Order: sequence, then structure tokens, then C-alpha cells
Amino acid sequence: MAEKKVKVGLVGFGTVGCGVAKLITEEADAIAAKTSLRLELACVVDIDTQSPRLVKLADGILTNDINRLLDDDTIQIGVELVGGTDAAKQIQLKLLEAGKDVVTANKALLAEYGNELMHCAHKNGRCIAFEASCAGGIPIISGIRTGLAANEIRAMYGIVNGTCNYILSNMTSKNEDFPEALSQAQKLGYAEADPTLDIGGGDSAHKLAILASIAFGYEIALDDIFVEGIESISKDDICYGGEMGYCLKLLAIGQKDKDNRISLRIHPSFIAKDNRLASVNGSFNAVSIFGSAVGQVMYYGRGAGMMPTASAIVADIIDVALGNSATTFRHLCLKPRNQTAALIEKIDNLVTRFYIRLMAKDRPGVFAQVGKVLAENAISISGALQHEGQGPDNTVPVVITTHPTRQSKVTAALEDLDKLDTICSRPVCIRIVDIPEDKEG
Amino acid sequence: MAEKKVKVGLVGFGTVGCGVAKLITEEADAIAAKTSLRLELACVVDIDTQSPRLVKLADGILTNDINRLLDDDTIQIGVELVGGTDAAKQIQLKLLEAGKDVVTANKALLAEYGNELMHCAHKNGRCIAFEASCAGGIPIISGIRTGLAANEIRAMYGIVNGTCNYILSNMTSKNEDFPEALSQAQKLGYAEADPTLDIGGGDSAHKLAILASIAFGYEIALDDIFVEGIESISKDDICYGGEMGYCLKLLAIGQKDKDNRISLRIHPSFIAKDNRLASVNGSFNAVSIFGSAVGQVMYYGRGAGMMPTASAIVADIIDVALGNSATTFRHLCLKPRNQTAALIEKIDNLVTRFYIRLMAKDRPGVFAQVGKVLAENAISISGALQHEGQGPDNTVPVVITTHPTRQSKVTAALEDLDKLDTICSRPVCIRIVDIPEDKEG
Repeated sequence: MAEKKVKVGLVGFGTVGCGVAKLITEEADAIAAKTSLRLELACVVDIDTQSPRLVKLADGILTNDINRLLDDDTIQIGVELVGGTDAAKQIQLKLLEAGKDVVTANKALLAEYGNELMHCAHKNGRCIAFEASCAGGIPIISGIRTGLAANEIRAMYGIVNGTCNYILSNMTSKNEDFPEALSQAQKLGYAEADPTLDIGGGDSAHKLAILASIAFGYEIALDDIFVEGIESISKDDICYGGEMGYCLKLLAIGQKDKDNRISLRIHPSFIAKDNRLASVNGSFNAVSIFGSAVGQVMYYGRGAGMMPTASAIVADIIDVALGNSATTFRHLCLKPRNQTAALIEKIDNLVTRFYIRLMAKDRPGVFAQVGKVLAENAISISGALQHEGQGPDNTVPVVITTHPTRQSKVTAALEDLDKLDTICSRPVCIRIVDIPEDKEG
Repeated sequence: MAEKKVKVGLVGFGTVGCGVAKLITEEADAIAAKTSLRLELACVVDIDTQSPRLVKLADGILTNDINRLLDDDTIQIGVELVGGTDAAKQIQLKLLEAGKDVVTANKALLAEYGNELMHCAHKNGRCIAFEASCAGGIPIISGIRTGLAANEIRAMYGIVNGTCNYILSNMTSKNEDFPEALSQAQKLGYAEADPTLDIGGGDSAHKLAILASIAFGYEIALDDIFVEGIESISKDDICYGGEMGYCLKLLAIGQKDKDNRISLRIHPSFIAKDNRLASVNGSFNAVSIFGSAVGQVMYYGRGAGMMPTASAIVADIIDVALGNSATTFRHLCLKPRNQTAALIEKIDNLVTRFYIRLMAKDRPGVFAQVGKVLAENAISISGALQHEGQGPDNTVPVVITTHPTRQSKVTAALEDLDKLDTICSRPVCIRIVDIPEDKEG
């Protein structure tokens, strides 16, 4: 089959941009042999044209003038790697209006302005491919959208933020407290100087919004997602949870119940140590998906980094150039297939198990008081842990796990517990997520 | 977007056929909402039109006359689920010649006659989609072919036969010996009445031939694959290996070295217990793939069964109907992208570690004799295990693990060991596979 030349323009020449440039230039022959497509990096746009980069471009490729890309009709595909939502949105809109297909890793932009961008793409007869936006190198979006197309997706449980997973893994394995683990992650480049978006759960929410809209077929707004980050996790709770058989992960959870109510949430989650997601450590990502026909499928791999993300970007470039993305985009697009709005389950209605830790005064009657408060809120205790010996200020940590309980009841109970004069600090409460493991049968 | 009607004909109405019929009929609305395609089961062909099935078809759909399918020009897609290689090959050729695209799960046929069939498809301007042929419901073929298209695939390690994994899992967890575990698997439907193709490794070889030809881009013949089954595995070796930190799996391994030499093999393999593949139990499948850009990616899920396989078949039907399969088939087809034949590494040249168990007479000097034979063959011992106490006939099991050694040396050493009068039965030899885990960095 004759080779077809495909000219690509990049906007944004940071880490991922360098990875994409490297893959396109160094692997051009291999990709041509595999796909009959001859990728050519025609133009790289960045406001900074001077700083040294990891990749050397041919003369004249790097420019600070985006019109070089927009005005060149021979460039079919524009890759937006600027990040953020303001400039990036304008760039994507301009690329689409200039008749170029767009490839992007920008989850924040898609989560916030996805519908507007998809609409613009449709209007201009172009497509947007965004495999790299979720879980880096793992082909999770095509996995759900085409590989599992015959399934009703019932639930997904994902570790989709490498920074948080790296921090929690180190807190677990090295018994580090949060500030220490965060600063170590920053030192090694696994966390940004301003880590808010990662550790606060916002980045995971962006990815869940994208994955859930594809999986469940509804337009998902960021407000539909309950978000709780890992900033206030203490190593003590990781340790006590560990003693009770749990491992702490920041999970992105999407569930659809039999009445089509959708629950979307990001929060620190205790999961059973023998669950497949518990052994996903460091900056790795993994997503477990439950489909009506396929049962459980799990994808595992690197969720970020220069080359893994570039791998997904270039896979999208190939898919766009082959014409498959356009078909997929037209047929299986982000535009929600359900005309009605999603029925979003409020977090107050969530029924799950809980881990509760109280710092209680070490004196008679405390357990009775705590038990009474829980009973009054109709919360049934599943397990309890109190080590002998004392903590600071004559207090002892009392750890309780509950049977499945409605969030609103636990919230009320925590308020009541907080009022007891035998409880010395605000109770800690972490949700326990019993991820079903698809077993024999 | 207006709905497009897609008429599908099935050939073969066994378990998977029933699953496909069930998915197409019961999920037609959901699939239409998702894809704008209205799938219609137009015709199901089977020689047996009388036996009761799990799925009820509308009147007139089931027929024993394949011409009903071949002659109906409104049927665009033919799904071959007959299995085997003789009749199935003729059916696929007829479908293609009748102008229909083919969807199939038939790995044996593709592994043996893939090129002939692909050629026929090209000649007739049709495509063959075969996601269901490897690892059942796991979208592994599209994962490699499109999701990882930008990568040079360097290695893959797969558990791709659910029957063997089920048997080995039970031998491990329940301390069952092979015949017992096999008969239990047969009783529960995890093994066929004639289990040869599964337990002998042949089925895994079929899948490896398909996956390796896609991953490495060469035409792979079944003869290129070294195959050793699990028939002679004893629970004792699983137990001793377990004590030394290993778990036994039947692995399908494809590796490409820096000189582009390809090693393809199916054999029982001791892998480290903390490797991600070690916890893949029962009839589940998993494949770890190492790509040049993406690093390690792992896919996990059900490798067989009515609905998981049907999930992959219907995903292929959708992909064919959208037109994407045709593009993928033309560009990223099974037809090897390398004009030269693959350089296949002979098993004799394999360098790996080995587990060797000898039944030795319990008397002085045995270890010295064994050590001498190994040293003469330049084999270096990595670990050893000999429990106190005696086995049958005054023998003791002596277990040795080696450092990386060439297969041919070990084969020679085993011959020499067998000749020692202190060694009472044929030495047992199982390869240890050190699967790299992609870690931080």
C-alpha cells in the first residue's frame, strides 16, 4: 500500500510535546511500515523558542507564531499540548475552524468545555481525539468506547492520578506522613510545585468526567462529581486501616445502579488488600471496569510521563490520519447519547462502609458513649481496633469500621461524636469501598 | 444521527453463538443509542436446528442452509463460530467471496490459514475482524494494533488459556495433582472432554501466533513457536517452587531482542509471586506488554465464556459496521509489514533460569555428583532446597535453581544427570521466567 504523508503541527513544546516530537521523528519509518502513514512534524508552536529542549528539531520547525500552523492547509492535524483551559480552548477552537483535526491530552479543558469543543468540531466536520487525556499511555478510552461497545458499563473504579498514588504508596510503604511524601514527590518530579489540582482530587475528577460520559452516555458536569482529596490523610490511618486488611487509594468511582442513577466520586478509599487495584503502586494507573457482558476488565500502565503520554498522542494521530477517529467521533462521540440529564446520586445518599477513627480520652465509658451515638444513628459496627497504651494527652485512638450505611447518617453521627467531651479531636472518616472482584462462576 | 441498519448472519449456534444472538437481540436498543447502528440478526446457520438453546430466536431465523446467508445481499457481516479449521475455512472463504465481512473467534484457523484468508479478504475488498480470537472479552488486539501503534513492542507475556490457568490455580491453591484438577475442570465446564488442545499448549500457541504477528509485524508460523504443555506438571514442583518464591503459570511469551531475533514460546513458567501475572487466577486471562514508549501495559479479564467472547464479537461487528475495521484491516493488517522472514530464535539458544528437581538416593556424595555435572556444563546454581527426611524408595527430592543459562547446556546436563546411578527418576526441569516489572523511574 502506498505511503500517505500526514503533516502534524504541535502547539506546546513542553515535556509531552518533546515526547511527541521525538516519537514522530525517530519512529517515522517504523510507523510507516506499520500503518502506511508517513508522519511529518511540520511545525511546533511555543511562546518559548529559546530554551534548550530534550529533542532537537530541524531548523525552521519551532515558531512562536500559531498562524504558521493555522494558515498551512497541508497540515491536517493540530496537537494541543498547552494545558490549562483558557488559551488552550482558543487554540483548539482556532485549529478546528482552520479545518484541522485536533489531538489533545487536556483533560481539564475537555471536562469543563468538552461539549462546546465537540460542537465546534462537528460544525466544522472535524474530530477531536483525546486518548491521552485519561490514564496516559493506557488505551482506556478506545477500550471503553470500541472494545467494550457491546456492554452496558455498570461501574468503573480507577486509580487515575499518578501523583496521589505515588504519595499514598510512599506513605504506606515508608510510613511517611503526607507533607514529607508530597515534598519527596515534588523533588522527584512526580508532583507539581503547586500540587493542588492533583492532591485535591480535581485532576481525577476531570478524568472521571470524561470516562463516565463515554461509559454511561450522559453529559457529565464537574459539579456532578463529589471530590475529596488526600491532603488530610495521616499515616496513622493508613497504618490502622492496614492492620484491618485495607489499603488506601484515591479512587475515581463511577457507578450506575439498576434505576440508572449515577454515582460519581473521587475520594480516599480503603480497599481490600487483595483487590487487584491495591497492588497498583507508585505513579502507575489502573482502571477496573465492569461490563454487562464482559464482566470485569482491568487496564494497568503508566498514567503520565513524557513517553507514555506521547504514545497515546501518536496513537491518536495515527487513528485520525487513518480516518477512524472521524467515524468514531461521529458515531460514538462525547456528545451524550442520552437526551435526558443524568440522574446523579447525591453523596448524602451514598451507601457504603466507613472507617472512623476517634481520639478518645482513656477512661471508662467511652466505648459505651460512642456505641450509643452510632446506635442512635442506626449505624452498625463491623469491626473495631483499639491498641493498649496511650497516645498524646491521655488519649487513645479508637478505630471503628461500619457495615454499609448511608453517608447522611454517618455525617450526623460524626457531628454527635464531635460533641462528646470524651472525644478530643475531630473524628477521621474514610470510606471503605468494597470493589467486587469478578470470580469464577 | 440517523440509524443505520446492519444485518448480521451467524454460522455456528453453540455457546458463543447463543451469546452473540442474545447480545444482538437484547441490547439492540442500547447499541443503537450508543452507535447509531441498528444491529439485526438476520440468519443463524447450524446443522443442528432442533436442540434447545439458551436463546430463543424469532421464527425462520435458524436454518441449516448456509446459502440463505450467502445469497442474501442485504446481510453485510458473517460471523463464523463453527470452530476447527476445515469446515470453518470453507465457510469464511465463501462468506468473503459472497461479499461479506467476516467476524470470527477462530484462533486455530487464523493461526494456521490466516494469510490465505487475509489474502482472500483483500482480493474481495472485505475485512476479517478477530478481536475475540485472543483473550476473549479483553480488547487486546485493538489494544496492540491501535492503542499501542506508536510503540515498538519488545515483549509480551500472557496467560491466554483459561483452562490451563484454572487447572494450575487449583493445583496451587488446593494442592491437587494434575489428573484430579483436570477432571474437576472438566466437570465444571472449564475443560473440554478432549482437553489436548488446551493442556498441550496448542491453543495458547494459536493465540501467540496471532498476537505476535500483530505485535512484531512478521508472518508467524505455528512451527516458529516452541510449545510445552502442562500435562506432566506435578503438585510437588508447584509446592517446592512456591517455597522458593515462585508461582507456576502457563505463559505465552513473545520477545524481540535488539538484533530483531524473535523468541516465541509456550511453556510452564515459574514467575515471581509478586509479579502482577502471578495473581491472575482461575479461568482469567492477562497479558503484559512492553512497548518502547509506553513501558508496561497490562490487560486483565475473562478469556473465554459465552458472554465475554460475545462481547468481543459484537464489538467487532460494530467496528466493521462503522467501517473502521476495513481501514484498520487495510492499513494495520495481519499481512506482515516485514518482507523478510522473522529471525526466530531456536529454543536451544534460549537463555533463562531453570528450576531442576532430582529424586536422589539419600546417601553421601550425591550433591557433589550433581554439582559436578552442573559445573561441567557451565551451569551456575542460584538456589537449592532439600528437605530433611526421606521420600519413596530411600530417595529425597533435591531442588536447584540456576542462574541464567543457555537451554542447550541444561538439556545436556539433564542427560548427564539422568545417567547418574544416584538419580532415580528423570529430572524435572521447569523454566523460570523473570518478567521485568516496570517500576518507577
